[in-house]
Amino acid sequence: MANVIVIGGGFAGLNLVKALCRSNHAITLIDRTNHHLFQPLLYQVATAVLSPADIAVPIREVFRNYKNVRVLMGDVIAIDKQAKSVTLSSEKIYHYDYLIIATGSRHSYFGKNEWEPYAQGLKTVNDALQIRQRILMAFEKAEREDDIQKRQRHLNFVIVGGGPTGVEMAGSIADIAYHNLVKDFRQFSTKDARIYLIEACDRVLPMFSQKLSEDARRYLSDFGVIVRTHERVTAITDGVVETENDRIESDNIIWAAGNEASPLLQCLDVPLDRQGRVQVESHCNIPGSSSVFVIGDAAHFSVNGNPLPGIAPVAIQQGKYLGRYLKNPHKKNPPFVYFDKGMMATIGKSKAIAQIGPIQLNGLLAWLAWSIIHLMYLVGYRTKLLVLIEWIVSYIFNKKGPRLIYR
Amino acid sequence: MANVIVIGGGFAGLNLVKALCRSNHAITLIDRTNHHLFQPLLYQVATAVLSPADIAVPIREVFRNYKNVRVLMGDVIAIDKQAKSVTLSSEKIYHYDYLIIATGSRHSYFGKNEWEPYAQGLKTVNDALQIRQRILMAFEKAEREDDIQKRQRHLNFVIVGGGPTGVEMAGSIADIAYHNLVKDFRQFSTKDARIYLIEACDRVLPMFSQKLSEDARRYLSDFGVIVRTHERVTAITDGVVETENDRIESDNIIWAAGNEASPLLQCLDVPLDRQGRVQVESHCNIPGSSSVFVIGDAAHFSVNGNPLPGIAPVAIQQGKYLGRYLKNPHKKNPPFVYFDKGMMATIGKSKAIAQIGPIQLNGLLAWLAWSIIHLMYLVGYRTKLLVLIEWIVSYIFNKKGPRLIYR
Repeated sequence: MANVIVIGGGFAGLNLVKALCRSNHAITLIDRTNHHLFQPLLYQVATAVLSPADIAVPIREVFRNYKNVRVLMGDVIAIDKQAKSVTLSSEKIYHYDYLIIATGSRHSYFGKNEWEPYAQGLKTVNDALQIRQRILMAFEKAEREDDIQKRQRHLNFVIVGGGPTGVEMAGSIADIAYHNLVKDFRQFSTKDARIYLIEACDRVLPMFSQKLSEDARRYLSDFGVIVRTHERVTAITDGVVETENDRIESDNIIWAAGNEASPLLQCLDVPLDRQGRVQVESHCNIPGSSSVFVIGDAAHFSVNGNPLPGIAPVAIQQGKYLGRYLKNPHKKNPPFVYFDKGMMATIGKSKAIAQIGPIQLNGLLAWLAWSIIHLMYLVGYRTKLLVLIEWIVSYIFNKKGPRLIYR
Repeated sequence: MANVIVIGGGFAGLNLVKALCRSNHAITLIDRTNHHLFQPLLYQVATAVLSPADIAVPIREVFRNYKNVRVLMGDVIAIDKQAKSVTLSSEKIYHYDYLIIATGSRHSYFGKNEWEPYAQGLKTVNDALQIRQRILMAFEKAEREDDIQKRQRHLNFVIVGGGPTGVEMAGSIADIAYHNLVKDFRQFSTKDARIYLIEACDRVLPMFSQKLSEDARRYLSDFGVIVRTHERVTAITDGVVETENDRIESDNIIWAAGNEASPLLQCLDVPLDRQGRVQVESHCNIPGSSSVFVIGDAAHFSVNGNPLPGIAPVAIQQGKYLGRYLKNPHKKNPPFVYFDKGMMATIGKSKAIAQIGPIQLNGLLAWLAWSIIHLMYLVGYRTKLLVLIEWIVSYIFNKKGPRLIYR
């Protein structure tokens, strides 16, 4: 029996504890919030398709029947490798035999932290609700505004970053402005909304093949999104995005451009990569230690010189692997091997792209595959059913139920 | 064709506009929020059974197909009867031929406004989410607390007011503490929670018959709620409720004791009752005017010397009545007559009381009737279906899905 401390209840941490909870280890799972969040659908909370409770489950509830699992809601502020302990912000100290860090990543502003107050990122339920509030309020403000130029400011949406989150957000906002809300306002046309997607690379979704990336761009343009690639953002101030070529006034600036790992990893005193991730060894352990492990987005697990991508399947597989490993921790255990099931990204209603080994899918077929897979991976029947109902309401009946302003 | 302005999108305002939207009047519906809220189930948002979007619908969506209905999200700060205009906080002025005030009520502290920061009321989505957060955090804090006395403070819940809201809240919190969460914590037993319901009258739910009122009290006691009637609260400070006989330390004080109408009614310069409601005449018009009307909780409509109760059926019927009236506004129209369908109140899981004319129902039968009627009255199929699923999850599977802390 060992004391196992897991920091973070995301995909990596949750799957680790699930794999390990039937052992006789005493497990402590620490998270800042009280819920596991299904992050791939978080953008749908931000765009009023889903409610937070449709994609989040209380962590305690998942492990309620395992007496050896203790869940703590709290903030870890320090790790002491020598003393084998972690300290919470409450100053309480917990000792471990094995420590697993699965703290994920936050959005990063590439050193331009002064942009943060004006360009909301999307990682937590709170982030999503703030973006939702802002998008919905923008249309309400437009309805009250008589000055056409000021009104356009409310109707300009700028999404910085053409990765999966940026593309999903742009497609969804287009769905809101050009479909869901067209009949709802009297003083202006929601079709006057302009949705800009700005990406520094020469294409959106650069992790996909050139062809799929072009498909995605075409879908976005068909939905009415103004896609600007090869364009770098040079400044963000209150309500203004400046790029190398343009200056856009907007009340709705969304940041989807960069990630960095939690600063907590700096306590470990091991080499970090440029995104602040720990370069872990083959059992997901940190260099020189067989008791501290890093998994999920916080880890840089190198395969042929490249890190594994920061996506849910990597985190899930690392969690499950380490759960099995810790049942019988030994250096002779086989190392972690990632099984690549492919990648998908969705673009608004009814379009997606998917790359599964040599197979490339696009359009409606890829979107159906994306929908089914995401429903399958949601934790629990309740969330699956609720998400299915909200999708039907949103995509078939053209309504967005959680379109509430209450903050 | 007339300009009709309706202030408030609750039961009264929404039903009025629904009844009137097929006319050729130009209707402006002004609300502070963007949604119609099904307030009878708001306590279930506060107790993590439902999400806000399960019981609220965007007002714009309800009237999207009626071009003569304009919905404005805004705060009315002044009414000028002479000029026939209302002013929003944006300083915009709107003129009316007919004005209907349906602004409902807020909780009142009987002149003890200094209690407000310590005793949260329950009227809006925001109120409900704040109470939910507080209840859930109380258990998290208890899990982190080693000092038994300090822990009990987190586990004491005090509800002031034994009307429907207070009784519903007390029963629901008992369900959380004594059923849903019992397996979720490791450092303490959730059964140590104490739930106090304090009422100044000699019985809870005093609007019901003596017998039903006693049934309700028995149900509450069976659920583990400590019911204190004939006990007046004398002081509320940060974390302490003092009554004539006791002093209870608690981090969770919920105010369900009093209501008062919106201060906006003072602009009208007509007699108000003690709760700040306008004493309206037989067509729901204010004294001496045939163009200004007050309906719902903001109105004091006297029948045989007693005001109609501040409940949804009164508001709905007044809204529908006035909608029909305004299609052909004339003093010769018949006056408003309230059709009393009875009253019900629910007490935790599977118990309720109901009084329908001479018929008195209690227990499971009343609870089933309560559940079916509330599902029927929810606006839209989406909300009915979502609420039904969450009730099944909560009452049959003993889980509370929206148990999320994220603020």
